[in-house]
Amino acid sequence: MQAVVYQGPHDVAIEEVDEPTIEHENDVIIDITTTAICGSDLHMYEGRTSAEEGIVFGHENMGTVTEVGDAVSTLEAGDRIVAPFNVACGFCKNCENGKTGFCTNVNPGFAGGAYGYVAMGPYKGGQAEKLRVPYADFNALKLPEGDEHEDSFSLLADIFPTGWHGTRLANLEPGESIAIFGAGPVGLMAAYSADLQGASDIYVVDRVPSRLELAEDHCNATPINFEEGDPVEQIKDTHGAMVDKGVDAVGYQAIDPETDPSDDAYDPARENPAVVLNQLIQVVRPTGQLGIPGLYVPSDPGAPDEMAAQGRLGIDFGKLFEKGIKLGTGQCNVKDYNRELRDMIISGKADPSWVVSHRVDLDEAPDMYEAFDNREEGVTKVLLEP
Amino acid sequence: MQAVVYQGPHDVAIEEVDEPTIEHENDVIIDITTTAICGSDLHMYEGRTSAEEGIVFGHENMGTVTEVGDAVSTLEAGDRIVAPFNVACGFCKNCENGKTGFCTNVNPGFAGGAYGYVAMGPYKGGQAEKLRVPYADFNALKLPEGDEHEDSFSLLADIFPTGWHGTRLANLEPGESIAIFGAGPVGLMAAYSADLQGASDIYVVDRVPSRLELAEDHCNATPINFEEGDPVEQIKDTHGAMVDKGVDAVGYQAIDPETDPSDDAYDPARENPAVVLNQLIQVVRPTGQLGIPGLYVPSDPGAPDEMAAQGRLGIDFGKLFEKGIKLGTGQCNVKDYNRELRDMIISGKADPSWVVSHRVDLDEAPDMYEAFDNREEGVTKVLLEP
Amino acid sequence: MQAVVYQGPHDVAIEEVDEPTIEHENDVIIDITTTAICGSDLHMYEGRTSAEEGIVFGHENMGTVTEVGDAVSTLEAGDRIVAPFNVACGFCKNCENGKTGFCTNVNPGFAGGAYGYVAMGPYKGGQAEKLRVPYADFNALKLPEGDEHEDSFSLLADIFPTGWHGTRLANLEPGESIAIFGAGPVGLMAAYSADLQGASDIYVVDRVPSRLELAEDHCNATPINFEEGDPVEQIKDTHGAMVDKGVDAVGYQAIDPETDPSDDAYDPARENPAVVLNQLIQVVRPTGQLGIPGLYVPSDPGAPDEMAAQGRLGIDFGKLFEKGIKLGTGQCNVKDYNRELRDMIISGKADPSWVVSHRVDLDEAPDMYEAFDNREEGVTKVLLEP
Amino acid sequence: MQAVVYQGPHDVAIEEVDEPTIEHENDVIIDITTTAICGSDLHMYEGRTSAEEGIVFGHENMGTVTEVGDAVSTLEAGDRIVAPFNVACGFCKNCENGKTGFCTNVNPGFAGGAYGYVAMGPYKGGQAEKLRVPYADFNALKLPEGDEHEDSFSLLADIFPTGWHGTRLANLEPGESIAIFGAGPVGLMAAYSADLQGASDIYVVDRVPSRLELAEDHCNATPINFEEGDPVEQIKDTHGAMVDKGVDAVGYQAIDPETDPSDDAYDPARENPAVVLNQLIQVVRPTGQLGIPGLYVPSDPGAPDEMAAQGRLGIDFGKLFEKGIKLGTGQCNVKDYNRELRDMIISGKADPSWVVSHRVDLDEAPDMYEAFDNREEGVTKVLLEP
Repeated sequence: MQAVVYQGPHDVAIEEVDEPTIEHENDVIIDITTTAICGSDLHMYEGRTSAEEGIVFGHENMGTVTEVGDAVSTLEAGDRIVAPFNVACGFCKNCENGKTGFCTNVNPGFAGGAYGYVAMGPYKGGQAEKLRVPYADFNALKLPEGDEHEDSFSLLADIFPTGWHGTRLANLEPGESIAIFGAGPVGLMAAYSADLQGASDIYVVDRVPSRLELAEDHCNATPINFEEGDPVEQIKDTHGAMVDKGVDAVGYQAIDPETDPSDDAYDPARENPAVVLNQLIQVVRPTGQLGIPGLYVPSDPGAPDEMAAQGRLGIDFGKLFEKGIKLGTGQCNVKDYNRELRDMIISGKADPSWVVSHRVDLDEAPDMYEAFDNREEGVTKVLLEP
Repeated sequence: MQAVVYQGPHDVAIEEVDEPTIEHENDVIIDITTTAICGSDLHMYEGRTSAEEGIVFGHENMGTVTEVGDAVSTLEAGDRIVAPFNVACGFCKNCENGKTGFCTNVNPGFAGGAYGYVAMGPYKGGQAEKLRVPYADFNALKLPEGDEHEDSFSLLADIFPTGWHGTRLANLEPGESIAIFGAGPVGLMAAYSADLQGASDIYVVDRVPSRLELAEDHCNATPINFEEGDPVEQIKDTHGAMVDKGVDAVGYQAIDPETDPSDDAYDPARENPAVVLNQLIQVVRPTGQLGIPGLYVPSDPGAPDEMAAQGRLGIDFGKLFEKGIKLGTGQCNVKDYNRELRDMIISGKADPSWVVSHRVDLDEAPDMYEAFDNREEGVTKVLLEP
Repeated sequence: MQAVVYQGPHDVAIEEVDEPTIEHENDVIIDITTTAICGSDLHMYEGRTSAEEGIVFGHENMGTVTEVGDAVSTLEAGDRIVAPFNVACGFCKNCENGKTGFCTNVNPGFAGGAYGYVAMGPYKGGQAEKLRVPYADFNALKLPEGDEHEDSFSLLADIFPTGWHGTRLANLEPGESIAIFGAGPVGLMAAYSADLQGASDIYVVDRVPSRLELAEDHCNATPINFEEGDPVEQIKDTHGAMVDKGVDAVGYQAIDPETDPSDDAYDPARENPAVVLNQLIQVVRPTGQLGIPGLYVPSDPGAPDEMAAQGRLGIDFGKLFEKGIKLGTGQCNVKDYNRELRDMIISGKADPSWVVSHRVDLDEAPDMYEAFDNREEGVTKVLLEP
Repeated sequence: MQAVVYQGPHDVAIEEVDEPTIEHENDVIIDITTTAICGSDLHMYEGRTSAEEGIVFGHENMGTVTEVGDAVSTLEAGDRIVAPFNVACGFCKNCENGKTGFCTNVNPGFAGGAYGYVAMGPYKGGQAEKLRVPYADFNALKLPEGDEHEDSFSLLADIFPTGWHGTRLANLEPGESIAIFGAGPVGLMAAYSADLQGASDIYVVDRVPSRLELAEDHCNATPINFEEGDPVEQIKDTHGAMVDKGVDAVGYQAIDPETDPSDDAYDPARENPAVVLNQLIQVVRPTGQLGIPGLYVPSDPGAPDEMAAQGRLGIDFGKLFEKGIKLGTGQCNVKDYNRELRDMIISGKADPSWVVSHRVDLDEAPDMYEAFDNREEGVTKVLLEP
């Protein structure tokens, strides 16, 4: 079958790979109907991880069940499902506690597994025609029959729950104000989540005008363009105070606003991995809380300095402590949220499909990777259709 | 009246100062029966803050009401009370939410007030014969008449709640394991709190044998002496795994175990302000949580390097994120805990008085400051009796 | 000054009463700008309580500060404020824990005080020109200057927080379904709160078409008219399942759908005090939760039977247990919510003023009591303007 | 193999039954090493349920794995495990939310399954030589090899978690006071749990002196014998106030203290199914919370009146509301607690084995059922050893 295969930095290709088969009685196989390119794929794409060539990418997967393992209880051929990007067993201590992003059984020696991602276990990615879903009773979320809400449902694999997770890590309460750094797909979904949860004032920080417009149009957010001035000061001036809560939807490849914009394309020379964390510490009020779904890594071969290369960042901890701030980090435990978000989509309460900018054939993936990596205007979220 | 007055680095003296008076209708005046020297007083004592000479020290205060402001509803002369070290109004947004350590009314321009502490507002300390307690209905916790439990009750002003706070910031659950760095009074109270809350396995890290013995004898804790080897490895070896939760009861004046011990006295050259934070990140398991009651400051004139002088510390954030760790920081909101802890003392469920090593006359304070600052063997917690 | 004074069952009158004065240093006096008639006033109005004639009614009060007690710190003449219906001290054990509806200081021998209500302490009501607000720093919520949002802000005294409280007692989570019994002002505010909090499916049960229309128009709710069939069956049929959560916004004067409607006016012969509780037990799914802000009383002189007269009701506890349902009861602790709801109104996130059907002069109060008591079509919420 | 089989009211016998086999790839078979008689078995034993003859009793089971289904990932022959009394799938909405007592997959048409219990699904009981454990990766809790702590570990199947659950439903906080009604095995475990969680004052109500002594000796509890006077008054007199929290470990077969004791044996004529609920409503303070693990049923053929026969009880709801009490009900979700409690046993923090009064051969079961049903002095908890 056809799949998107990593060839090395800034290079993916469509290749022919083996079809997946039932490997364990609790597996199912699905025909992919929609899969997506994720911002976290770009870390591998840019060569900023230890990913080696040959990986089939794709951890945001939905489709139709075609084969069912003998031990599977609740799924049958024809069922339409979406799979969390996390692969999880359902019965380890972490899974029992709802921490399915940190399953201790599916990726020996590490807490957490995922499809098509470096160091996240042996699970092939879904930017392909078919996918094997392990522990399928646990990992497959059933969807209504048909093809309604296809775009919105596909976002349940990762970015809608991950954006939501950012606001939950920050313990956002209705009526509170929140600053969200990053208006990529996750940041936009965090802003949308904040709006759905009743936030009073939402500030979204980015430098790409089209993304800021989406935040304004769909999330009742106030856009803050950090190329136009210190975002902390802009927010405090607009809000008249510090905000209650903050979300970091950027991660370690953050751009320092004090560097000069070279051009519209992404420029690694502008990176400062702790800049967003320290902005959040400034902009959130004493007793505030931070949710940090944006990725930070313990080893970054392309880091700007030696300390950052080992994942050690210069953080304003004295200020953080003085303000009594709490923070939560880590990848999203998708199953914590995906049922409820699915139900919000079905009932019409939520429709996150506005974040999708492109739905294209699988074989256009190489071009879309390049466009997305360049943060091209208008390329927000790309869905692939095998 | 007599009071302990700061004279400059490493120097306090007993001086004659004005007696406090009712300044506001909601004030009371108390005769101090017990007050204490706190580890956080040592930061001022050592000249590691911007404290100026003339400050009356003392934020751990208990005594007997002698004068009552006209608007006070529930107190009268003769009442025995203990005052949280935080001064708080009771009605600002933070106080309403239980965040009395971050009151926005009592210390203009800052969130949080305290007695006898630099930058914490105009409130005189209680290492003296008398003390003014503002918003007394809110800030005074009534105690049973008499003099029973005098030592234990005096610890309700700060270190028992602060140690407890460390475990709550870490969201310790019964049956969990926890590592507590620092066996000073707060660390010991954190270990004692963990035991009272049903922790299964408690590890306490320090280098002073007499303190580690207290942890072992009174908290069911396993002592870990960091002069005898990497504490992270010691804990993992003993426990057979990483622990569930961690508490930093050390703060920014942490000693780096990889430096050579010069002698028993405290040696600033061995400091490494982020070392305990990074040890905790190593020793806590994925999905774990950290409680950080140990003090970190946004400005440290005696810091080992330029970055630390501004409160910016090199933290292993990549590893923190990978493990999905949450952390909570900040000074204790004493009123969140002091009623319940008082009731535990009254019922006999808790008796933290074992942490008290000395009860001396107020005029011995200068000697005791010196001994406590030197972390002399056997000097754990010093109470002063005017 | 003029005030609404209870004369006996079904009879209130405008009378001249003494103006309030500062009685305690922490008091303020306000000029009432808006006050409201509450559904709970009707229990007194109908003679279904032990209220004696002469009570000045009115616990939903807002206005402008005119006099300030000497000990008040944060208010001054001219400030625009809204007062929670609960009178609370701010420093008892319950107030400290946020349970300001159960203050143990303001109403000796009872937990909880309120303005203008039988057995709730010596506090005059605010359906008058002026009002004394005790512990004013704690009890007065400041509003922006001017007269914007006057209707919405006035609802912060009781029904918006009380409706919100219903959903919080039920621990409503975003994406969940909820059934709300009662479309009086509190029920409508509960439905509006559920919508603001992200409920997927909201069912509102009543028999007054104009109220059900408001739920449909302003809360995205599905109306269920219990005169048209068993509401439990209607909800289960429409939803295709039991719902996740439920709110009882009716209380003990509930109408039994199995009785015959006599005419549009309220008919006590149709009452069955446990009927809504038992409907909720049926309609909520196993592991569900119930929020019960609707009033139940330990003594009801007009109850349909002897057992109910003592507040003892026949509840399907076997079924409740089998389903593992949790329930929360009691009057709203207004201060738990009023700041956040105020901020939602200011930012435009919430505008509950649609529930107001009438804003009239204070002297129209007697007519409006009668109309409201008759549940006349179109009389939803009546504001009075002295 | 041998098993305890229900023969009809007050009659069980040891019979030969078929050995269990692997029915599903996710099953394991265990050799029972310890199983127990539970107070809830007595409801069936007394003919107070719709249980029909032929049921193999036993839902508190531990043993050694002998056969392993093909799809099981983490268990192998020889593993020592204890099984929660709930049978649960691990992946339905309720299981995902930790509500494994209300699994919607294992018992079609009902939320919740269990071994050897009427209406709880097709799962044979474990008062036998062998047992089939479905969804074994999820339902089997691994224990350390060997035979240490055999008694304590066996209590992890039900009563230790169920007692703990009572305190969690009541949201007990350290330092609080609590009244526990019932000193049967579950009540005693609730009292022990309260002590482990740091309760200040624990009151245990029963009429069997030997049980009250256990509460006093092992749980730091104050015994209250309801045959010696109104337990509500006794507690209020002793405590000097109402208590913070309450637990009902009795359920619907409660004895009314106002009836005359006939003799030591259990007398159904003294039953009053709501009496404990109403005592709890009296004895718990305003804003308190109740945990109700004691069983209530929607249908009771032996109820004292018609209303109770349908599970409808006369509850003082007016008083409950006035006090703003919350309550939680339902069978324990054992997996919510059993890991942590196991770890407390392993570390020596907890040792609940004192509640065990008898460990006997399986064939003594009939005699022990009779003795336990008579609440004979000294018969607290009976373990069976096949």
